[in-house]
Amino acid sequence: MAAGNRGLAIVAGGAGFIGSHLCRALTERGHEVLCLDNLQTARPSNLRLLEALPGFSFIEADVVNPLPAAVAARAGEITRVYNLACAASPPQYQADPEHTMLTNVLGTHHLLRLAEQAGARFLLTSTSEVYGDPEMHPQVEAYRGWVSCTGPRACYDEGKRAAEALTFDYARLGRAAVRVARIFNTYGPNMHPDDGRVVSNLLCQALSGREITVHGDGSQTRSFCYVSDMVEGLIRLMESDIDGTEPVNLGNPAEMTVNELLDRILAIVDTEAPVVHKPMPQDDPRRRRPDIGRAQALLGWAPQVPLETGLARTAAWFAEEIGATAALSARATQCA
Amino acid sequence: MAAGNRGLAIVAGGAGFIGSHLCRALTERGHEVLCLDNLQTARPSNLRLLEALPGFSFIEADVVNPLPAAVAARAGEITRVYNLACAASPPQYQADPEHTMLTNVLGTHHLLRLAEQAGARFLLTSTSEVYGDPEMHPQVEAYRGWVSCTGPRACYDEGKRAAEALTFDYARLGRAAVRVARIFNTYGPNMHPDDGRVVSNLLCQALSGREITVHGDGSQTRSFCYVSDMVEGLIRLMESDIDGTEPVNLGNPAEMTVNELLDRILAIVDTEAPVVHKPMPQDDPRRRRPDIGRAQALLGWAPQVPLETGLARTAAWFAEEIGATAALSARATQCA
Repeated sequence: MAAGNRGLAIVAGGAGFIGSHLCRALTERGHEVLCLDNLQTARPSNLRLLEALPGFSFIEADVVNPLPAAVAARAGEITRVYNLACAASPPQYQADPEHTMLTNVLGTHHLLRLAEQAGARFLLTSTSEVYGDPEMHPQVEAYRGWVSCTGPRACYDEGKRAAEALTFDYARLGRAAVRVARIFNTYGPNMHPDDGRVVSNLLCQALSGREITVHGDGSQTRSFCYVSDMVEGLIRLMESDIDGTEPVNLGNPAEMTVNELLDRILAIVDTEAPVVHKPMPQDDPRRRRPDIGRAQALLGWAPQVPLETGLARTAAWFAEEIGATAALSARATQCA
Repeated sequence: MAAGNRGLAIVAGGAGFIGSHLCRALTERGHEVLCLDNLQTARPSNLRLLEALPGFSFIEADVVNPLPAAVAARAGEITRVYNLACAASPPQYQADPEHTMLTNVLGTHHLLRLAEQAGARFLLTSTSEVYGDPEMHPQVEAYRGWVSCTGPRACYDEGKRAAEALTFDYARLGRAAVRVARIFNTYGPNMHPDDGRVVSNLLCQALSGREITVHGDGSQTRSFCYVSDMVEGLIRLMESDIDGTEPVNLGNPAEMTVNELLDRILAIVDTEAPVVHKPMPQDDPRRRRPDIGRAQALLGWAPQVPLETGLARTAAWFAEEIGATAALSARATQCA
């Protein structure tokens, strides 16, 4: 479909990791895309690649502030508003916790008002962090979570919970058609090497031959979704006809320990880097795994990319990014 | 102590129910008081009585907006910032859920910045609602709650959780000395007759002879703290030397069912009003009772006013307010 036939999609946070893949996918599916980003955690190279796409444009803006007049001026063209704006890794979102909270609450407020004004559909990317350190496993959407509202992760976790509350109030009042995705751990090219999350940390440490850091004994579990699967899920959710009054988990239910992840990485990266153990950060969740029954039933969606393939692609991309291609094993090249 | 010797206290929400009692108590204890209120749920008569007090002044302002310049201009005098701004009963805070969320998040943000600028101590009145429909009983401060972030109470519950998160981040970053009180059900004179909470509802219905509404079968429990006890707890918390990195429950641990409360009310109000049962509102908590061990240990505080006394005083005040003094039994007059 030609760029623009499906109207203008606003992607707040579109220069970030998932956002950059989403912007590309939306242009490929016939949207014009206007990306808003404050470039807080975005990689400039993500943006340069996007700016070459037909139908893509960019405005540097922080959604904490009222949206630029140039956005409201195009309200008549806007059909979709995707809100991916917020630093998502603990070191990044904890650097300025007040800004993190306001990004989630005020940013969502501004973008919901834009969607209302434009009559556009709105999608909030919420997070598995709304479940905190879950006592129910795997996590279904009805689980209310085990979240500290007083701790150092609260600026993000509670910010997202507040953003969900705002979003569902818009739906209840008929002010906008909304969708809420709760995104579980996602990985792939375009992540920031200093992102601070486990896949990027372990991959970059292994590739560069530095110390490989494992928090705790490595028995905590995570589940990892490749970014192309996540983007497919987000678009299917946005385009689905479900009545958006419930959140939808998106993630990969294949659960593994951090130690198992490291073994998979060491199978595709030749490294002499030693493994060192550090204390678990405060409030770090011990287990995290989505129940994706709702997404499967409503969207016909499930992750397709095997971890081996996704990791190999991501390793190849990071190797290029940090200049460490020599460390890639033959197996990595084969899988990618 | 003469008014003003303890510096200027800002009381946001000071024309409301608890706020009006707090303003009075602060002027009596040597503070000048500047009350900020948007008059959304305040009773004009509360304000008229306050305006007669020496050292009291009022500015009509909504904390969702940047604070009036006249407030910042007095930063050098401000020693205490109390944030009580937010409608607190479900029908009131659900009337404009977006405003409720922004009052909690943006309002707290603006008042924290004021406290930082003034070098003043900040107290947030949070709520037992941060525990949601609790699965732990009684509720200790470390309990993380069972809160829906998607339902119709979320604008308030999640707004307060987000406000706590913001407040503790200010403490962690050394930007302000903070205190957070989690207030449980409170009752007393100056409540709004149409407040929508169980004490005011049952008292006003009994006094006026209208239908008395009990939600569900009345077996849900609450615990009720008389307002003078609550104000004493808030001031002790603000003035305590505790390091404000943890919230403190304030409330009365004497738990009773709504049916028991009604019996106590019918003992002091002569009424022919019939009792009708209505469905429980969505997400209404079944049980609620504070563990006040922390307040007792840190502040030497516990509620002093017996329910019989407090109810009689409140009934007498409501009777005057709604013109139904004839319905007060001799027992009510005796207790008050």
